[in-house]
Amino acid sequence: MPARRSTAQWAAQLAAGVVDAADAIDQTLAAVDACDDRAIFTLTTPERARTAARASLSRQRGRCPLGWLDGVPVAWKDLFDLSGHPTTAGSRVLADAPPATADAAIVTRLEAAGMVSVGRVNMTEFAFSGLGLNPHYGTPVNPHGQRRVPGGSSSGSGVAVARGLVPVSIGTDTSGSVRIPAAFNGVVGFKTSGGRWPMHGAYPLSHTLDTLGILCLAVLDAILVDAAARRLAAPDLRRGRIRDLRLIAPTNVVLDDCEPAVTANFEAALGRLENAGARIERRIIPALDEVLALNARYGPIVNAEAYALHKERVDGEAAAQMDRRVASRIRLAAATSLTAYIAIMEARRRLVAETAAMLEGGWLVAYPTVAHVAPSIDALEADDDLFVRINMKTLRNTLLGNFLDWCGVSIPNGFDAEGMPTGFLLSGGPGRDDHLLAMALAAESIIRDDVGQSPHDRS
Amino acid sequence: MPARRSTAQWAAQLAAGVVDAADAIDQTLAAVDACDDRAIFTLTTPERARTAARASLSRQRGRCPLGWLDGVPVAWKDLFDLSGHPTTAGSRVLADAPPATADAAIVTRLEAAGMVSVGRVNMTEFAFSGLGLNPHYGTPVNPHGQRRVPGGSSSGSGVAVARGLVPVSIGTDTSGSVRIPAAFNGVVGFKTSGGRWPMHGAYPLSHTLDTLGILCLAVLDAILVDAAARRLAAPDLRRGRIRDLRLIAPTNVVLDDCEPAVTANFEAALGRLENAGARIERRIIPALDEVLALNARYGPIVNAEAYALHKERVDGEAAAQMDRRVASRIRLAAATSLTAYIAIMEARRRLVAETAAMLEGGWLVAYPTVAHVAPSIDALEADDDLFVRINMKTLRNTLLGNFLDWCGVSIPNGFDAEGMPTGFLLSGGPGRDDHLLAMALAAESIIRDDVGQSPHDRS
Repeated sequence: MPARRSTAQWAAQLAAGVVDAADAIDQTLAAVDACDDRAIFTLTTPERARTAARASLSRQRGRCPLGWLDGVPVAWKDLFDLSGHPTTAGSRVLADAPPATADAAIVTRLEAAGMVSVGRVNMTEFAFSGLGLNPHYGTPVNPHGQRRVPGGSSSGSGVAVARGLVPVSIGTDTSGSVRIPAAFNGVVGFKTSGGRWPMHGAYPLSHTLDTLGILCLAVLDAILVDAAARRLAAPDLRRGRIRDLRLIAPTNVVLDDCEPAVTANFEAALGRLENAGARIERRIIPALDEVLALNARYGPIVNAEAYALHKERVDGEAAAQMDRRVASRIRLAAATSLTAYIAIMEARRRLVAETAAMLEGGWLVAYPTVAHVAPSIDALEADDDLFVRINMKTLRNTLLGNFLDWCGVSIPNGFDAEGMPTGFLLSGGPGRDDHLLAMALAAESIIRDDVGQSPHDRS
Repeated sequence: MPARRSTAQWAAQLAAGVVDAADAIDQTLAAVDACDDRAIFTLTTPERARTAARASLSRQRGRCPLGWLDGVPVAWKDLFDLSGHPTTAGSRVLADAPPATADAAIVTRLEAAGMVSVGRVNMTEFAFSGLGLNPHYGTPVNPHGQRRVPGGSSSGSGVAVARGLVPVSIGTDTSGSVRIPAAFNGVVGFKTSGGRWPMHGAYPLSHTLDTLGILCLAVLDAILVDAAARRLAAPDLRRGRIRDLRLIAPTNVVLDDCEPAVTANFEAALGRLENAGARIERRIIPALDEVLALNARYGPIVNAEAYALHKERVDGEAAAQMDRRVASRIRLAAATSLTAYIAIMEARRRLVAETAAMLEGGWLVAYPTVAHVAPSIDALEADDDLFVRINMKTLRNTLLGNFLDWCGVSIPNGFDAEGMPTGFLLSGGPGRDDHLLAMALAAESIIRDDVGQSPHDRS
C-alpha cells in the first residue's frame, strides 16, 4: 500500500520536481491494480491518465503548470460521466447503457486545472443508502476494522482516499454520501452548498438535494480542489481565527443515541475549541426536529424524487437486477401524494430560509457526523430489518444538512476503543462555503489535536 | 378623476414642497372614495395613511425625508398582509380569516422608505387567472374601453394606476399577473426575478412561480420603487445605451394568433429600436415550445401547487363559496401524479439554466406582452368555455417568463383602432433585473414614441 500523501503534499512535490507526474501516475495505477480490495475501483482509465500525466510533466518541465493541482490524481464516484464509458452509478441495470459522449462538467473543470483522472470508484446502487453495501460490484472494506462497512453512498471514494490510493476523490452527497464515508474512514469530507459546482453529467438521485463534494486527507486539500472546481486561478487560502469561531452545538436530535466514543470524541474536540477561544452555544435548533417530523409525515424528498427517476425500473423487470434494499425503499415513495411532496418542498423552503437567517453573522453548527462508527458488513448483509434501522440512523445527522442546504466539512476527531474513526461535522448556511472552509482550516488542527494515527495505522 | 402623476413626479413635487404630503394623501383618499368604480379598492386604510402622511410631512419640513419616495402613496394587491386586517386574496372564503398580525415584508420595506399605504386593491380569487373577473368583490373596469376586462390577477392594481388613483401598486406575477394588467391598462409593469424581493406575508398561489412586481406609469418609477424594495439608500439610475441593446425577438410561439394591432404595434416599436441602433435577432427559441408542451403534457406547475394549497377548499364545502372558474381549474390538478410534477420541475430547472446561458452577455427577449387587447367582460362572464380559451391565450406569452424565471417589463406601445392599449414586453434572464431596468429605461421613450395619449384620454 502506498504511503498516504495529501493533495497539498502531492502538489508541492510535483511543483518542486521531487515527483515526476508520469512516474507518479504509473505508480498510482500500479497500486490500484495491486490492491487486494477489488471492490474499490469499478473502472480504471490508464491510457487517459498516462496521456494526461505526460502532458502535465511537460508543463511542469516547461514551468507553466495549469495550477497548483497540475498532475495530481483524482478518482471519480461511479456516477460521473467519463466520455467513452457507460455511467453505471453502481447498478447492473446501467452496465449496458450507451457510453457517455462527454465528460461530466466537474471532470472537465478539474482536468482543466491539470488533475489526472485515474478512474471511477464504487458506490451504493444509484447512490441510495449511507452504508456502502453493493451486491453487484462488491462492498469496499473499511481499512480501519474487520469487515466494517465503508459508508456510502461514496463508498469507494472513502476507502480509496483512506488507503492512499488517490489523494482526492469526488463524490456526491444527497443525505450524507460524502460526509458519512469520510467519517467512517477517518478522512475529510466536504459537501458543497447547492449550486456551488456544476451538476451536469452527474447521474442524479434527487434533483433537489443532490450536491457534490470532496473526500481528501485535510481541509487544505478541499480548499485547493474546491477552487479548481470553481475555475478560480488560485485558492483563497484565508485561515479563520479560532476566536472568531462561533458554533451552535444543537442539544436536540443529533446527540440522541450516539455511541459513547462518538459523544466523548465530540465533547473533547468541542472542549479544545472552547479552550482555544471559540464561542460555543449549546441550544435547541427546532428546525432539526421539524426536518425529521416532515420526513416521517410526508416521506423523504429523496425517495419521491428517486421514485420519479426510477419508477419504470423499480416497478418493472429491471427490479430483479437491482439491490433489493434499494428497490424496495425507492418503491415506498409510490404511495407519496403530490400534495404531500409539495407540502414538504414548501416546508423545506421555509426551514432553509429560517436556519440561513439563524446562521447569519457567520455562525456554524457543530455535531457528530454520524451517531456511531462503521458497523459490521456481515451483520447488515444478513438482516434487512437491521439494515433499514441502522441505515436510517447512519443518515440521520447528515441528512439535516441536505434538507437545510447547508455546506459541511467532516473532520476526523478520534477513534473508538476498537480503532474505528469518528467524525466531527462543521456546517454552514447556504452559500457560506468560503467561510466554512476558512474556519474549518483553523479548527482542523484543534479538532484533530489528539487524534494522531489510528491504532490500525500504527499496527 | 385626479390628473395622473408618475411616482417620480409625486416624489419631485413632495421634495420641492410643491405638494404637502398630508394634503396629497387626503386628496388621494377622497379620490378613491369618490371613484365611480367600487370594484377597484377592496380596503382603504385612511387612519394608517393619514398618520404616515403627517409623519412624512414633518420629515419633509425638517428636511430629513426617508428617501426619494417619502410621502408617495401606494396601493397593495389584496393578498399582501396589512396588520389588523384579514388577508382576503380576492376570496369570500378568507373574508372571515383572522386579521394579519404583521405587515408583509414588502409593505414594511416600502413604508420604511416613506411610502404611504392607502389600502388594498382587487384581484382575481387566489390570483388564479389572467383576465381579472371577480364575482365576489366585482370586476374593476378597464378605463380604456366599454366594459373591457382589467386583466389579472392584479386587476385593481392595473386600473388604480391607469386611472391615476395611486402612482404605484404592488402586485404579484405567477403567470403574468403584473404584466398582463399593465398591458391591458396601458401602464408599465415590472415583474422581478425569483428571490429579488421578500415574499413573506404575500398570500401564495405557486411557491415555485410566484414573484412580486410593480404597476406604475414609467420605467423610472419602477426603478425607484425597486430600489426601496431592496432597501437601497438610493436607486441606481443608470440608463442603458440603445446601441448596447441586444434583443432576441422569438419567431415561434409568441407571435402566433396575435391580433393585427398587437403585431403592428410590436413591429413598429421593434423597427424604431432597430433604427435607433439596437441589434435585433429574429429566431426560434426552442425552449418556448418546450414550456407549452410540458404544461400540456404534465399540467401547469401553478395548478399542481395551487391544488396542494387549496385542496381542502376545492374538494370541500368551501368550493361553493368560490369562483366556479377558479375552483374547477384548480381541481384539474387532482389528476396530476407526483412523477409528472417532479418531471416538469426537473425540466424547468434544465430550461431555466439553458435559457439563462442563452441570454448571457446581456441579451434581452422582446415580444408582445399579450397576443390581444383586453376583451369584453360580458362575453367572458356569459361563456365559461370562451373564458377558458381566452384566459389560456391571455397567459400564453407571459407565463413563459415565470416558467423560465425571467424578469420582465411591459411597456405601453400603442393602441388598437378602438383605443385599447397594447404592451411591449422586454424580458431578461434570472437575476438580471438591474440590466433589464437600465435598458428598459433607455428603450422606453422609443417604444412609446408615437403612443401619445390614448383616444380615451384625449376624449
